[in-house]
This record gives sequence, structure tokens and C-alpha cells, in this order.
Amino acid sequence: MSLDPIALAERLIACPSVTPADAGAMGVLAHVLEGIGFTVHRFAAGEAPDGPIENLFAMRGHGAPHFAFAGHTDVVPAGEGWSADPFVPAIRGDLLYGRGAVDMKGAIAAFVAAADRVSEHHGTLSLIITGDEEGPATYGTVALIDWMAARGIRPDLCLVGEPTSTHRLGDMVKIGRRGSVNIWIEVPGTQGHVAYPHLADNPVPRLIAALDALAKLHLDDGNDWFQPSNLEITTVDVGNGATNLIPGAARARINIRFNDEHRGVDLIARVEAIVKAHAPTANVRGIVSGESFVTKPGALSTLVADAIRERTGIDPELSTTGGTSDARFLSRLCPVVEFGLPNATMHKLDEAAAVADIEALADIYADIIRAALA
Amino acid sequence: MSLDPIALAERLIACPSVTPADAGAMGVLAHVLEGIGFTVHRFAAGEAPDGPIENLFAMRGHGAPHFAFAGHTDVVPAGEGWSADPFVPAIRGDLLYGRGAVDMKGAIAAFVAAADRVSEHHGTLSLIITGDEEGPATYGTVALIDWMAARGIRPDLCLVGEPTSTHRLGDMVKIGRRGSVNIWIEVPGTQGHVAYPHLADNPVPRLIAALDALAKLHLDDGNDWFQPSNLEITTVDVGNGATNLIPGAARARINIRFNDEHRGVDLIARVEAIVKAHAPTANVRGIVSGESFVTKPGALSTLVADAIRERTGIDPELSTTGGTSDARFLSRLCPVVEFGLPNATMHKLDEAAAVADIEALADIYADIIRAALA
Repeated sequence: MSLDPIALAERLIACPSVTPADAGAMGVLAHVLEGIGFTVHRFAAGEAPDGPIENLFAMRGHGAPHFAFAGHTDVVPAGEGWSADPFVPAIRGDLLYGRGAVDMKGAIAAFVAAADRVSEHHGTLSLIITGDEEGPATYGTVALIDWMAARGIRPDLCLVGEPTSTHRLGDMVKIGRRGSVNIWIEVPGTQGHVAYPHLADNPVPRLIAALDALAKLHLDDGNDWFQPSNLEITTVDVGNGATNLIPGAARARINIRFNDEHRGVDLIARVEAIVKAHAPTANVRGIVSGESFVTKPGALSTLVADAIRERTGIDPELSTTGGTSDARFLSRLCPVVEFGLPNATMHKLDEAAAVADIEALADIYADIIRAALA
Repeated sequence: MSLDPIALAERLIACPSVTPADAGAMGVLAHVLEGIGFTVHRFAAGEAPDGPIENLFAMRGHGAPHFAFAGHTDVVPAGEGWSADPFVPAIRGDLLYGRGAVDMKGAIAAFVAAADRVSEHHGTLSLIITGDEEGPATYGTVALIDWMAARGIRPDLCLVGEPTSTHRLGDMVKIGRRGSVNIWIEVPGTQGHVAYPHLADNPVPRLIAALDALAKLHLDDGNDWFQPSNLEITTVDVGNGATNLIPGAARARINIRFNDEHRGVDLIARVEAIVKAHAPTANVRGIVSGESFVTKPGALSTLVADAIRERTGIDPELSTTGGTSDARFLSRLCPVVEFGLPNATMHKLDEAAAVADIEALADIYADIIRAALA
């Protein structure tokens, strides 16, 4: 009897694995994977409050090529207002409801079912599963990559099961992601009374001039794989409640989503230079959340797109839009593409995946395994 | 025996009349004024929380010319950190310590002593004293002016006893004040995720562009009586704590201190036009705290300056600098100048006036009364 992806998805949803909690999810997965021939390695990483994090690496077969599936069992908090308990999986109509149904316990279940269906393959099939994708991601995929590196394990191709489909299963595959950098700007001044501006030094006009220049900055026009890089001023804060006071400091923060024409550190340096041209004493601090990356259309994306087209009749768009994902870490190892369920309800109330989509995804994943390890 | 201004100042300081409290100050004043021939009218105005406010109008003599002294018995809060109880007057060394010693119980006491010394004069001598100058000023001098108008009372000349001296008693007389207007700007937008800017509408760049234009606005070059008008951006606030969120609204506030080349309403309209050129959907709201006014050098300022020069040897600067005062209301009635004690410690911890300055101020005020009502 073949493994039912819906039943496995339900068992995973029943574990309230809100990051960093595991709540038994890895145990469910490990048991099922061992049952279909995988060698399962589990380890915890990190300490409170961001950890410990449960991680799992499972492998079947040996040698090249090594095809890996990456995913996460952790979910974002349920939030208030669900129609029913978010951690009690329930099928109503055509949909499987529950936190993580879409992002991404449904996809993990589909991949495990696919691995069950493809009982014979060449090379190595593996699953790289973390419990820390929705959180800081400090002790998750990065720790798994370190763990694999220490054992000489390196995949040749990687598929991440994030919910990339938008309107219909198969309409979008992600072949890369933009990078993201946050930059904090603080301009010091000297507080004083508005009636005596010569005794004060208002930092706001300098910050404003810097931000105006940043808002007008043209980073690039985009390219074949990426939309244009984009800078947003996400906040400006002075917090001066007194109408008669010139404030002593002014702060702002920007976020840049950037394509592969930039590196995060270069953007921080560029922003700092612009800010200091207008506000020489400004303090500028940047943190790169992730560099941009792209797996340019080739063998892997063709293989995935063919499988999708075969099962759904849809020719998927190869996209680099949206937020960041753990694919940014895996892209350092090998070509990576991301493909999973429609994402309309991910992170929302009443998250739900179509039962038929999970079934179809298992079929598509099985075809991808067959093609990758032919 | 003549009235001692120091003793009266001490009795007034002993009343903790922090706006809107009177704490007995008006009663002290009324009793002393009645003792030296004044007819005293007292009335309360306003309701909690900004009132009721005790106001006092005292008059001696009759007919023209009518010379009025204006002041206030209320004081700003003491704050923490005084060397001794701020409401227990104490002479240490050459100084009289206590909240209000400078601003402006010392000056009121000096004027009452002056009125005592000038027992005979032509015309009318009056005192317009409010308990609401340091607060919203809603139920103070404005209510007194209404009260007088209802009785056909209108001074021909007015001296306000605010602490206008800076380094030495007599070095500065105020012949006018700049106006002040506060303007609140709010730019609406549409909140969204930074990864999907096309689904959001960041209001910050529009606000920034508007503020940059405002910061570069040249209002005027000043004139014979006034320094240039000045615009300060006093705060900018978005309050977005999330690095991945495009905010849905952005706010700022500006203050303009303006000279007699402008009116507050015109400035609000001008700012609104500039803001809307950059942010058409912005909401712009202005409140005029006070219009600018000036009593151009003439009979009144000459009379005051002569009295100062006679007693101190100092030729006072006729200035329009600094914040607003109740002179802005009185200037609608007649020529107004402001002259009082050195202001170094006003509104500060350990507020103190030199005993000799209060004595000398009483002499100068007496000379002014003699000249005004000769």
C-alpha cells in the first residue's frame, strides 16, 4: 500500500511546531522516512531563546548524482481568528485546513509520498529538513549545511518545497531570489528651543536631504532574470512630542531588495556615501539578510518545468520575485529551484491546501525524482 | 513706610501657583493693591482641566492717559532637583530664590512697589494680572481683555513685566515678538510587504520630498525690527517597527517663527501648497499660536529706555527675539513693550533674582509710571 500524502500532512499539521518548537514533527517524519528506506540523522542546534532547533537529514541510495529536497517543519504562529483549531487538521470540501498545510507540511508530505512511489533510482536522494526557517534561520539550514559539509555530503541538485505557485499549482517556479539588506541611519544634532535655532542644530533637514537622495536613487533596470532592484524607506522617526523643541537626533531605516547586479555590502557602502554627503556626522549601519542568487534556466529548471507541464498542462513562469527563503543558503552548494503549493493562504488565518494539489504535487515530485536520478 | 518689593515677592513665591492653581497669590496681590488705593476686580474663567483661572484687574485714578502693567502670577512646575523647597522663598547671598522669582513674581512685586512710590499721577494706572500665562493662556489675558472691553476699558500704553533682560538688568527691552505657527502634515499611503512594492504605496518618499522643499524654503531676510523668519521640522514619525513592511502613513510637524512680513494663515496656506505639490493626498493642518507684532520704536520705547538708562547707565537693545508672550494679545489694544528682570534662571532649577535687581526694577518702573502719566 502506498504512502498517503494527505494522511502524512495531517499528522504533521497535528504537531504545533511553531518556531522554535518541534512538537514531535521531526519524529513523525523520521519514522515514515525510515519506513521507506531512508537513513535518518537528527540533531539539535542552538540554545534558547532561538533554539534548540530540531534538524533532520535523510538519505537513500549512494553516489552521484545527489538530488536533495529541502524544507521545514516549523510554522508561523496561528494568530487569532481561525474558524477551527489550526493544529487539528481538517478536510472541509476540497481543502485540507491547518497551520502549515501550504507552508510547507503539505509539500513535505507530497515529497515523502513521491520518494515512496519512486522506490528505485540511481544515485542519492536526500531530504534536508529544518525546524528553523520561519524564525531567525540561524540554527536551521545553515547548521544542516555545516553538518553535511563535515561529512563530505554535497548535493548536485536541490529542490526547495516552498509554496511558489500563485493562482494554480504549477504556474510559478522560483529560480532565484533577490537579496535583502536593511540599513539604519541616525543623524545626530543638538536639541534646543525653536525660538532660538542658532543655539540648536536640527538634524532633520540633513536626514531629509539624505533620504530624498536615496528615494531618487536608480539602482538598475532589472535584467533577464530579475526585476529592478528596489529601495524603500521603511521608517523615519524623531519622536519629538514638543511643538517648541528642535530635536536632538533623527533616525530612519531603509530596505533594499536587490538583484544579482549588486552585493549587499556594496549597497551599504553606497548608501552610507550618499547619506554622509548630506549628513557628514550620520551613523549608518547595515545588515545583509541575504544576497541575491539565481540558478539560471538550465537542466534543473527544465526538468522541473517538464514535470509540471506533463502533469498540469501549465508552462511555469521561472521567477525571482518575492521574499527570501532558505534557498539562499543552499544556492551556495549547487543549482537550486523552488516549487511547491499555491501560496494564497500561507501565513494567513484558515491556511488551507487543496487535497488534489497535494496529490498532484506528489506525482510531479515523483517525476522530478525520476528525471533527476534517471 | 514704603512697600518693600522683596517682602511682597517672597509672599507671592510662597504661593505654589503652578498653572492653573492660584494657591492664594491673587489674594495677596489684591490685598496689597487695595492698601495703596487701587480698586481691584477679580474673576475666575474657564473650567477644568485648564481652569478655572484666577484673573485680576486693578485700577487707580481715572481718565486718560491709561497706562497698564501686565503680568502673571502663575509659574511653571518646579521640577526635581532644587537645592531647597522652590516654594519657600529664601535669600542666600545676593539672590532671592524660589519658583517665579524671575518669571515673574519679582517683577509684579517691583511694579506694585513702584505704584506705591508714585502716589500721585495723572490719568489711570492699572494692573492686568492673570493666572494663565504659562499654561494654554485660553482663560487668562484674553479673558481679561474681553472683561475690560465689556466695560469700555482700554489702555493707551502697556508694559509687560516679562523677564526680558539677559546678562544685566536693562540690557534688553522687547518691542515685539515673532509669530509662531505649528503645522501638522500627514501623508497617507498603502501598507504592504517590501518584497512586493507594486502592491503597496510608500508615503515616505512623498513626505520626504515635501519636507526637503520646506527645509529649503527662504521666507525673508529679516528687517529693521525682526530677524529672518525661521522654519524648523520639529518631528517626523512613521513608527514602523517591521523591517519588511512598507508603512501606510507618514507624519511630520513643523514650526515657523515668523516676523511681521507674514501672517500665520498665509504661511499655513503656503506650506500646504508646497506639501501638496509633492504629496497631493497629504492632510495639512496648522494652528497659529500667535501672530507677529511690533511696537515700532517711539514714545513708549523711548520712555522705557530713558528710565533704564537713567537708573542703570545701560542703553537697552530693542529686540523682537525669543518666544511668545501675552504681549501678543495686548498688542491688539495699544503700544506694548516688555521689560523685566534678567532671565538666565527662568523655568530652571534654583530660579533666583538678585535682590538689588528687584529693588532697581521698582525704581525704573516708578520712573516709567511718572513719565507715562506725567
